Amino acid sequence: MRISELSRRSGVSNATIKYYLREGLLPPGRATAATQAEYDETHLRRLRLIRALTGVRGLSVAAAKHVLDAIAECQTDTHRLLGIVFGIWPSDAGKPETNGDGPPQESPEADALIDAMGWSVSEYNPARQVIDQTLRTLRSLGIEYDWQALLPYADLAARTARHDLDRLQTVTDPLEKAEQAVLLTFLLEPALMALRRLAQEDESIVRYGEGPDTPQPGGPCPPGHE
Amino acid sequence: MRISELSRRSGVSNATIKYYLREGLLPPGRATAATQAEYDETHLRRLRLIRALTGVRGLSVAAAKHVLDAIAECQTDTHRLLGIVFGIWPSDAGKPETNGDGPPQESPEADALIDAMGWSVSEYNPARQVIDQTLRTLRSLGIEYDWQALLPYADLAARTARHDLDRLQTVTDPLEKAEQAVLLTFLLEPALMALRRLAQEDESIVRYGEGPDTPQPGGPCPPGHE
Repeated sequence: MRISELSRRSGVSNATIKYYLREGLLPPGRATAATQAEYDETHLRRLRLIRALTGVRGLSVAAAKHVLDAIAECQTDTHRLLGIVFGIWPSDAGKPETNGDGPPQESPEADALIDAMGWSVSEYNPARQVIDQTLRTLRSLGIEYDWQALLPYADLAARTARHDLDRLQTVTDPLEKAEQAVLLTFLLEPALMALRRLAQEDESIVRYGEGPDTPQPGGPCPPGHE
Repeated sequence: MRISELSRRSGVSNATIKYYLREGLLPPGRATAATQAEYDETHLRRLRLIRALTGVRGLSVAAAKHVLDAIAECQTDTHRLLGIVFGIWPSDAGKPETNGDGPPQESPEADALIDAMGWSVSEYNPARQVIDQTLRTLRSLGIEYDWQALLPYADLAARTARHDLDRLQTVTDPLEKAEQAVLLTFLLEPALMALRRLAQEDESIVRYGEGPDTPQPGGPCPPGHE
């Protein structure tokens, strides 16, 4: 297909596709004339993955290129492929403190939790720092909280991960597996947190009463959403 | 205490405290002279809550004031109080599409999920739109996914919510309960997602082999964290 059709089918503008070609995120098409090239389904799939990395979860173009290069190098090794994907961190409040290319920061509370769960986790997984950082933040705000309080959540996370991996098990193509892992890991996060909010509201009705129609908008206790 | 001690103990600057006083987020202290006032522990606790709302999860000062006002009006009604807190949405990628003060957008897939779970949830809970938006996004990226695929996650979310509410059950003071609900709902989110990443890595080792020390940094398949 021509670049215009690639643009139409991917929803990515011509100019952005040309930018990705220049930066090496997208491999060149097959040249059919001095200023024309043909693109195929692999280009379309790769554009979707770039869009998922940069658009949906806000990675920089440089970070997305790093991930794509790593996926290309590791595509015959499913564990390493998934390790790359699970090690990507969105550029939001959950981002761990980093210190460049030095050794990873210590995370004694995550270490204790991982030991207690019997998990095998790379020392480079940035989720370790997020755990310790969260616990430090809670305590700085006067809330008594330590890694042992997270154990019931860790058990639920293990069950969540089994559902996640069950879903990926059905995908055989390595690039498609990486794409789905990115999409399902990143994109499901808001939905999983939304499910928690819904379940919290239901549980608060179970415990503290009143029907599902309260709080009423405009009443004395307005709903808190903006 | 004087404003300087309030600043020292809260970690919030004098200038910011004065700004919160002007905007009505913080009630005035007890005047002891023309230009001096005494503050107490309730001011300190309220400052912590403001900091949690604005600093940690990025609400605007106006949105934080809206939440604080609503909490003040509803503090004798635990369910409504928690409804306000659970209805707050962080200003990040998880924010649902809104259409101002009009009726809430339709969310047929969330409705079906909530029905299937037997949950009681206000039609104003913004988490409904997040569910539908997530499913639309996944399908636009070529992934077959519907609300039924979320059911196992909904079951795990219900268990998560029970842990959350167990924790709040031990707090009796309404403002403190609201504060802890804000902190634990918002601040635990990155940690819960981090637990999922750790559990995913462990599960991928269980399924696809190799030891916990791979991928090695600098090897052919570098870890994907930035």
